[in-house]
Amino acid sequence: MTRRSEVPPPVTAVLDASSTWLPRRLAEVEEVLAAQMGGHGERLAEAAGSTLAAGGKRLRPMLVLLCAGPEAEEGEVRAAAAVELVHMATLVHDDVLDAAPLRRGRPTVVATAGREMATATGDLLFSRAFAILAEAGQARAVELLAGASVELARGELAQREDAFDTSIGEDRYMERCRLKTGALFRCACLLGRDEPALSEFGEGIGLAFQLLDDVLDVSGPPERTGKARGTDLLDGTVTLPLILAAATDPDLAGADLRGLDEAAAERLCDRIAATGALDTVRASALEMVAKAKHGLDRAGLEPEQRQLLELVADGVVERYG
Amino acid sequence: MTRRSEVPPPVTAVLDASSTWLPRRLAEVEEVLAAQMGGHGERLAEAAGSTLAAGGKRLRPMLVLLCAGPEAEEGEVRAAAAVELVHMATLVHDDVLDAAPLRRGRPTVVATAGREMATATGDLLFSRAFAILAEAGQARAVELLAGASVELARGELAQREDAFDTSIGEDRYMERCRLKTGALFRCACLLGRDEPALSEFGEGIGLAFQLLDDVLDVSGPPERTGKARGTDLLDGTVTLPLILAAATDPDLAGADLRGLDEAAAERLCDRIAATGALDTVRASALEMVAKAKHGLDRAGLEPEQRQLLELVADGVVERYG
Repeated sequence: MTRRSEVPPPVTAVLDASSTWLPRRLAEVEEVLAAQMGGHGERLAEAAGSTLAAGGKRLRPMLVLLCAGPEAEEGEVRAAAAVELVHMATLVHDDVLDAAPLRRGRPTVVATAGREMATATGDLLFSRAFAILAEAGQARAVELLAGASVELARGELAQREDAFDTSIGEDRYMERCRLKTGALFRCACLLGRDEPALSEFGEGIGLAFQLLDDVLDVSGPPERTGKARGTDLLDGTVTLPLILAAATDPDLAGADLRGLDEAAAERLCDRIAATGALDTVRASALEMVAKAKHGLDRAGLEPEQRQLLELVADGVVERYG
Repeated sequence: MTRRSEVPPPVTAVLDASSTWLPRRLAEVEEVLAAQMGGHGERLAEAAGSTLAAGGKRLRPMLVLLCAGPEAEEGEVRAAAAVELVHMATLVHDDVLDAAPLRRGRPTVVATAGREMATATGDLLFSRAFAILAEAGQARAVELLAGASVELARGELAQREDAFDTSIGEDRYMERCRLKTGALFRCACLLGRDEPALSEFGEGIGLAFQLLDDVLDVSGPPERTGKARGTDLLDGTVTLPLILAAATDPDLAGADLRGLDEAAAERLCDRIAATGALDTVRASALEMVAKAKHGLDRAGLEPEQRQLLELVADGVVERYG
């Protein structure tokens, strides 16, 4: 849970199933994002451009556009770009903290340009997100995005506060997930259409995304996840698999995460897996996704729109399968 | 120029000269700021609270309120708090980069709570600034503040891009000052009243503030500035004193700032001072302040409002004298 990871959602499946409006609007989002990088000197363009190009799958912009539907216009394209800029800003800052050399196989901004440039690049991406919305008079979008940004920061703070505390419970963990991951997914949906059923959908798949991410940190395998097993444990981040496992294995309840080395973290992962906790967390995540999809009944969607949103939800699960 | 410093402006003089509305509104700004710190767990309140308490002199909030005048209401109080939140966010992030132990004689957030907490605290302060304005429907204020935040980040990037480059000229230096310091002063004035003459006033005193700060870095004395002489040079930050000095002293033009130690930086400071460049920069700053005050003729201010704004402008100079 320490690093927000970005496992490819089924972009191809969604794009294949969509009529032409979605790819066209997504291309416009890319143009807006690219335009934000211009005019600030070569080194920024280079540094941030690499982040842009590495790109991820634009899951949040896709949610904005899908919730808006085929009538999505310039304002929704701008909102889609803005939510991605905030997401990118958090990734750039996370990489500074982690001194991460690579993200998605490409050098990070911090590796290319140093901590100062990377911190300023993150601040710039963040400011730009609000600037493009404010300049266009999209006051409600600013409000939604500012609220979600507050929650992201609170989630980060909560996680750091909880570090190495193995007494935290499921409620506190879920609250952190809501803040750190659910909030921006929910915001993306609301930026598309201000509708409670879509808000719940966004939060539901965001939470499931985070839960499955936390399962993958314990289960691996590294060759698939691209990182060693137990990195959360090494960072002192207590996630649901450990919380549930500790309820049945008293030794785990008393585990001290400080001073763990990689081998010890791997052994702890095996021990967590042996309790069956991973299956329980997986099942919770699948249930959340099913519930999120079901909840779309109340959103009054067009058939294509509904189908595509369900494909995105399925993608959150499939990345695990 | 690396660190945004905060030398006491003549708050007391301004408050003494003001009728009761200004202290009352400033107290409300403090309440808004304090409220932003609540509800996020004890450690944040502690960490950010210390930043709040160390407080600075609330120069930017004062500009918002003074430009608004005695009719300043809740919206201007909120805008005054928001501009200070952005300023605080940049200070917290700067301290992370510099691993600074103290600011204004108090432990920094990064020293108290670590890099992760400090980075997230800065992000939270920044997000909160936009959230409080957006929630209250202050769309124009969001636009102004987002624009200024973009400029702050661009200024930071420009400074890093220029690091150790002794060939940069006066124009480029002034542009950096406008972005890094002028923009937020200007924004503060515009948040009070959307009036070009006030915008120019804010930018003018912001630039003068930065120029004098850069003089102090060369002139010291350390017991007054609270930092060693030549810290900008050690960071590779080329400021106007060096630029002007290099025009008359060819050895300075060829100086290599990489690998300077503190003693060498002090010697370089002496050499810059010997050219008379400091007097030239000081004179430029004084001229800017005089011009800024004169420009208030066009702003249509009440006599008290005008007098208090001039006192703030004088404070920018006096901190030097």
